Amino acid sequence: MRITQQQISEHNKNARDAHESPFAFIGEELEKKGIDVDLLINQIAIFQVAIPSWALGAGGTRFGRFPIGGEPGNLEEKISDVGILHALNRSSGAISLHIPWDIPEDTAAIKELAREHDLVFDAVNSNTFQDQDDQEYSYKFGSLSHTDKAVRQQAIEHNIEVIQYGEALGSKALTVWLADGSNFPGQQNFRKALKRTSESLQEIYAELPSDWEMLIEYKPYEPNFYSMVIPDWGTSLLLANKLGDQAQTLVDLGHHLPNTNIEQIVATLFLEKKLGGFHFNDSKYGDDDLTTGSIKPFQLFLIFNELIDGTDDCDDLVESIAWMIDASHNVKDPLEDLLQSVEAIKKAYAKALLVDRKRLEEARESNDPTGAQSILQDAFQTDVRPLLREARMRDKAAADPIGLYRDLDIRKQLIEERGTETIATGL
Amino acid sequence: MRITQQQISEHNKNARDAHESPFAFIGEELEKKGIDVDLLINQIAIFQVAIPSWALGAGGTRFGRFPIGGEPGNLEEKISDVGILHALNRSSGAISLHIPWDIPEDTAAIKELAREHDLVFDAVNSNTFQDQDDQEYSYKFGSLSHTDKAVRQQAIEHNIEVIQYGEALGSKALTVWLADGSNFPGQQNFRKALKRTSESLQEIYAELPSDWEMLIEYKPYEPNFYSMVIPDWGTSLLLANKLGDQAQTLVDLGHHLPNTNIEQIVATLFLEKKLGGFHFNDSKYGDDDLTTGSIKPFQLFLIFNELIDGTDDCDDLVESIAWMIDASHNVKDPLEDLLQSVEAIKKAYAKALLVDRKRLEEARESNDPTGAQSILQDAFQTDVRPLLREARMRDKAAADPIGLYRDLDIRKQLIEERGTETIATGL
Amino acid sequence: MRITQQQISEHNKNARDAHESPFAFIGEELEKKGIDVDLLINQIAIFQVAIPSWALGAGGTRFGRFPIGGEPGNLEEKISDVGILHALNRSSGAISLHIPWDIPEDTAAIKELAREHDLVFDAVNSNTFQDQDDQEYSYKFGSLSHTDKAVRQQAIEHNIEVIQYGEALGSKALTVWLADGSNFPGQQNFRKALKRTSESLQEIYAELPSDWEMLIEYKPYEPNFYSMVIPDWGTSLLLANKLGDQAQTLVDLGHHLPNTNIEQIVATLFLEKKLGGFHFNDSKYGDDDLTTGSIKPFQLFLIFNELIDGTDDCDDLVESIAWMIDASHNVKDPLEDLLQSVEAIKKAYAKALLVDRKRLEEARESNDPTGAQSILQDAFQTDVRPLLREARMRDKAAADPIGLYRDLDIRKQLIEERGTETIATGL
Amino acid sequence: MRITQQQISEHNKNARDAHESPFAFIGEELEKKGIDVDLLINQIAIFQVAIPSWALGAGGTRFGRFPIGGEPGNLEEKISDVGILHALNRSSGAISLHIPWDIPEDTAAIKELAREHDLVFDAVNSNTFQDQDDQEYSYKFGSLSHTDKAVRQQAIEHNIEVIQYGEALGSKALTVWLADGSNFPGQQNFRKALKRTSESLQEIYAELPSDWEMLIEYKPYEPNFYSMVIPDWGTSLLLANKLGDQAQTLVDLGHHLPNTNIEQIVATLFLEKKLGGFHFNDSKYGDDDLTTGSIKPFQLFLIFNELIDGTDDCDDLVESIAWMIDASHNVKDPLEDLLQSVEAIKKAYAKALLVDRKRLEEARESNDPTGAQSILQDAFQTDVRPLLREARMRDKAAADPIGLYRDLDIRKQLIEERGTETIATGL
Repeated sequence: MRITQQQISEHNKNARDAHESPFAFIGEELEKKGIDVDLLINQIAIFQVAIPSWALGAGGTRFGRFPIGGEPGNLEEKISDVGILHALNRSSGAISLHIPWDIPEDTAAIKELAREHDLVFDAVNSNTFQDQDDQEYSYKFGSLSHTDKAVRQQAIEHNIEVIQYGEALGSKALTVWLADGSNFPGQQNFRKALKRTSESLQEIYAELPSDWEMLIEYKPYEPNFYSMVIPDWGTSLLLANKLGDQAQTLVDLGHHLPNTNIEQIVATLFLEKKLGGFHFNDSKYGDDDLTTGSIKPFQLFLIFNELIDGTDDCDDLVESIAWMIDASHNVKDPLEDLLQSVEAIKKAYAKALLVDRKRLEEARESNDPTGAQSILQDAFQTDVRPLLREARMRDKAAADPIGLYRDLDIRKQLIEERGTETIATGL
Repeated sequence: MRITQQQISEHNKNARDAHESPFAFIGEELEKKGIDVDLLINQIAIFQVAIPSWALGAGGTRFGRFPIGGEPGNLEEKISDVGILHALNRSSGAISLHIPWDIPEDTAAIKELAREHDLVFDAVNSNTFQDQDDQEYSYKFGSLSHTDKAVRQQAIEHNIEVIQYGEALGSKALTVWLADGSNFPGQQNFRKALKRTSESLQEIYAELPSDWEMLIEYKPYEPNFYSMVIPDWGTSLLLANKLGDQAQTLVDLGHHLPNTNIEQIVATLFLEKKLGGFHFNDSKYGDDDLTTGSIKPFQLFLIFNELIDGTDDCDDLVESIAWMIDASHNVKDPLEDLLQSVEAIKKAYAKALLVDRKRLEEARESNDPTGAQSILQDAFQTDVRPLLREARMRDKAAADPIGLYRDLDIRKQLIEERGTETIATGL
Repeated sequence: MRITQQQISEHNKNARDAHESPFAFIGEELEKKGIDVDLLINQIAIFQVAIPSWALGAGGTRFGRFPIGGEPGNLEEKISDVGILHALNRSSGAISLHIPWDIPEDTAAIKELAREHDLVFDAVNSNTFQDQDDQEYSYKFGSLSHTDKAVRQQAIEHNIEVIQYGEALGSKALTVWLADGSNFPGQQNFRKALKRTSESLQEIYAELPSDWEMLIEYKPYEPNFYSMVIPDWGTSLLLANKLGDQAQTLVDLGHHLPNTNIEQIVATLFLEKKLGGFHFNDSKYGDDDLTTGSIKPFQLFLIFNELIDGTDDCDDLVESIAWMIDASHNVKDPLEDLLQSVEAIKKAYAKALLVDRKRLEEARESNDPTGAQSILQDAFQTDVRPLLREARMRDKAAADPIGLYRDLDIRKQLIEERGTETIATGL
Repeated sequence: MRITQQQISEHNKNARDAHESPFAFIGEELEKKGIDVDLLINQIAIFQVAIPSWALGAGGTRFGRFPIGGEPGNLEEKISDVGILHALNRSSGAISLHIPWDIPEDTAAIKELAREHDLVFDAVNSNTFQDQDDQEYSYKFGSLSHTDKAVRQQAIEHNIEVIQYGEALGSKALTVWLADGSNFPGQQNFRKALKRTSESLQEIYAELPSDWEMLIEYKPYEPNFYSMVIPDWGTSLLLANKLGDQAQTLVDLGHHLPNTNIEQIVATLFLEKKLGGFHFNDSKYGDDDLTTGSIKPFQLFLIFNELIDGTDDCDDLVESIAWMIDASHNVKDPLEDLLQSVEAIKKAYAKALLVDRKRLEEARESNDPTGAQSILQDAFQTDVRPLLREARMRDKAAADPIGLYRDLDIRKQLIEERGTETIATGL
């Protein structure tokens, strides 16, 4: 299943009429403000968001899972699915693998397949939160923080193995998410668990190639419901600082307590030069893993606003941070969900690029909150969809990715190819 | 696997020495306050908490599940497990079945088996949140609230069938928990979904035997993460009021937004004569389904305080409400967890019975919050464990249920009987 | 201090050039979709938001208050301030008084003054959460729920008096917000407090003119921090149902526990025909009382989406609900803050009007959450500012209300008139 | 107003009878477990909790304040009030001053007065969240983080002045709580504000005497409602680490987002040797500042459990951390509230001392959460009140502090002395 350039250009031809007037309008408006529209479109175009290999099937909850049909059953099919997304939006040019769900058997063939789809391999992810069939020790009571050195050693070796798979594919980062923690008061010695985790990470870090980064994720709860060993950004930063320059913090938008000001955390980590990556999703209650931008689009804009505020060079920003979607698709077609997520991320990014930073800084310096709010709203209220569409069309992606996906009836084709019974490995 | 009366009396003989002095002490102290200790012990003894059939195996999260071994593989084994609990504590004399996980094939034999273990059948539970293999329509997008009348009809009929199973076993209540809701803004027409739910419940209610109750559960989120059709007690009460006297609200302690004052909800429902049942568990973040009393023991006490405050006759209170545990056991042995939960519930109940209600009401009437707090603390700080132990020993249950469970190595025996591979049906 | 029509038309003349192209663009785009732009602009124009008399001075927290200068010192000055707002935006044509802060001494003169500013009197608000100098009994331990009948009687009579003031001015609703509750477990008998409240409200309701409404506000905490007598919409609805058709629930956006789905509450109350009024503000943590739309603009849009979804006639919707801002202005100029709030409310309303309801309902009926989300986003992403500006300019209000407010240096003039020491009565 | 030793011994004589049997019982039970009861009582006795000078009057909310009468009108009266508390419980032997509310005019006389009451001076507190009459610059938009260097300088100098007052009185720590932050997205440049704060603290730290500590408090919101410059322990630790060994983090129990696991934060800070002090209070919703132990007594126990778990020497623990109550008394008599708070703190401490740490560590090492929970519950369920009472009576404090306080009608005497109109300076 592959989308042809022909299909896209036909779609775009039909879309051009409706596009022209909105694009002309926004272009003129922005130019009146002294904004270089071509530069802006280019900045939007180069922003790429990695797709995790586990996000291509239907997700679920502990209460059940409703398969969608046509889910990819192996790594090749997963790469093909990301290829469909990238063909449609030219903004999903990377895939993030999860070991052991996606162990590449023939590395060269996998790299070639990815190349054909114009994809690179983003951060690789280890898994020490589930037991595999052939595994000697269980992770029921933790992995890198486990009381038993043998279990920790197994988890350390797994992480090192993941690095090796990543090296073979050209990845440059290892993401470590620990489910370690406790469900009951008293169950875990917090201090010992943190020290053991720190020591385990040290052993993994020692094996990290010199041009790699280790991204340390944090999460306050789930799957452990009393404590997690790395519950917050403060603990992640503490660990990263002990490890060294290659260790960084990864922010997953869903991994925060109610009401957390995430954009401020982002700003602080950025200031400390310890912001390594993002996992995008959206949520109303907990780690709901909904489509990015579906619940709190303004928060997403504010996060990008902080990032752009903290950098001199947006292209550098785009390069230096690992951007990835990490969501679950319980009721939507995963591919449609991912297209909506990427679109929402890029809308937020584009709007943040439009913020008049000079005037914003003046409002701040003169303690004018009314003015500062108006300046942000000016950018947020702007309808940037024509800019994203133009960026896509210049890049030979689809004017309307979901529209074309539906017109071509791709899910139906995937089901015909793969059947309704395949279940994507992973969550 | 059954615990003999012989095993228990031996255990109790050994425990008597250590028990005597604490029980004598608390007895004297309470009698100084004019409390009838025998009456109190009797009140504690008759309090029974139902065990749901799905709580006898290891629970799990969407990230994985770690089986415990020896899990019951069928309804008979589930009844046997509850029998073990009830033998140990004489406080778990009821089992709550879940259809279709526990469809009794030979009703008479099942009733006889339960009778042997001195168990009765509590509320029966329907399931319209998962798809069964032989099911015509999917519940992916809801059940009683579904947009399609055919799906609603299927869910209505399932509930009516559950009533029939319950009647055959001697149950007197149907618990309806709806997972229906939406994951995204716009997905569901809130008003239409609520109206459809109301109409569907009406059809089920019409089939309810005249001595039954319908217990309507509420939950703010999970498995749907934007909205649930019955998110809070207000909506449950609204529906129950439209249905009639036999419809009541069921409170699950884990089904509330952060910081909710649950004891106040309990008091309001009690005042409105619409409090029908409880699902006990504990939580720190969401519907964590941890051991009751493990996280917020004071809240549990306050809930019982409201109930006793609102009644003239505690025995009647005990009878008129359906008390059930509804927890998940991700890292503990389920049977141990259930023993701890029942113990915590009865401790909270016993402490609430000790509150000096006359003085409390005086403190309230004279607006003396310092005094009111002291009166509650007087009861809460009292060590009631000897009272619970005495109640158990008088009832030929074990002085130390978990101690005996471990001494007899029951889990090991269950594993030998059933193997390590059985997985309890359900969550 | 009054803004002249001359000042406004000059301002608008200068603004017209920049306005023309955006307005022409959006007009054409909407007409392509079959939307009647003139009708839409009219719908936007007639939407009026009442200004509460206490929101015209600097607010504060328990940690302090930083006065702004030029605050209105009496009712006349408050009306004058609302007059400024209404002249600037023609969308704030009502004022909501608070008794006893705003007792009108000469009713006829006050009505005439309001008429000059083209203002009407919205709901009147009672205050039983503070003690006044001449008050016989203290509200320290409650008012309508107090244990002492004499205190309740005093609070009942105050509310009846407030109705009388309201009648004299032409108000048609009484808003009752109760701070009653408790700070400590045990302090209050929940059931008795609720019954006493219900009985007290009954006595007030008996005095309500037949064309009035009683709006019952709810709030989960603050100023009481363990329980509030009317903590949630369920309790408010319970009370309103006992009272009768003229009693309705009032939703204050800041009065909810973390993560509450407010738009669903709005839909349920609307379905039950019990949604009487709104207090607009925004918040990130609790009852933060920030500028409406400054934190969660998408939630505001979703709320209006529910309202419009539930009505056949938007003009009727606008008329039948009491819309009021209720915010605190700790660091902004209150008048600027109110202008921003009204603007944000009308933006959300305008966007919600743009939702393609036919297609939305189709997406819902076919269980297409991706589609439903796209349809909402289509409306939300639209830049409606030219529509609001056009509505204002047609109505002889300012193209840019805050811009003109600043150009005319109104705060400076108010300080010159009133000094820096005046403190607006109330919060 | 002073309580005589005579009054106390009379009270204790009457209390002895009722005390003897419970104390004998618990003593025997503990000795059976090998616990040295005299040592335990001594550990309980030496634990002292400082009283902040601002907690001696009625607190309030932004909605109002209800004075209690007899509130201390100056520093001498505040010391006298703490003297009353300390005479009653011998556990409140320190007072924490707040500048400028408590500027001592005659240092020698103040020290002598404190000495008479057997009180020492705990940490001194600066105030840069309110404007004082004689102040050149306003803190409306911040203090140590302000955009204007002149404002920052004023705040720095104020803190240095506070150190000087503290030195004169014998304090050994400065507590810095910053209200700095922002109410609206965009208002503040997060990174610059954090850098400015860090630099300002550096200047204060440079003036810190070598045997002093600087305690850096954090708070997520209030009085600013979008962001606070030091929102969480991670930011406080970041700043403290940049400053040096004398800078530590202070944990206020009310300063956390919903559901935060505070005991884990305590453990992490303790491990990092950066836990400097505590502000005790309790809360259900936000920074509610209720009586410690009134809402979450189990959490308080778990916090002490972590502290004791992390230390080899409990006496050293008691000495090395600054323990202070920081609560607001909106409806209770402040002195009664403080007595209840100190009692609750010492109960939690005593229960945590009873935890069988050897068995707990074994349960942890063998991954036995059921066992670990039982071990904690064993300690928590123990009624330690006789131990606290015995510790008090040995120390010539009152068997029942609140009982004696009420018997002696102390509030009435204070009102007679000071009138009903005095308002304690501060909150």
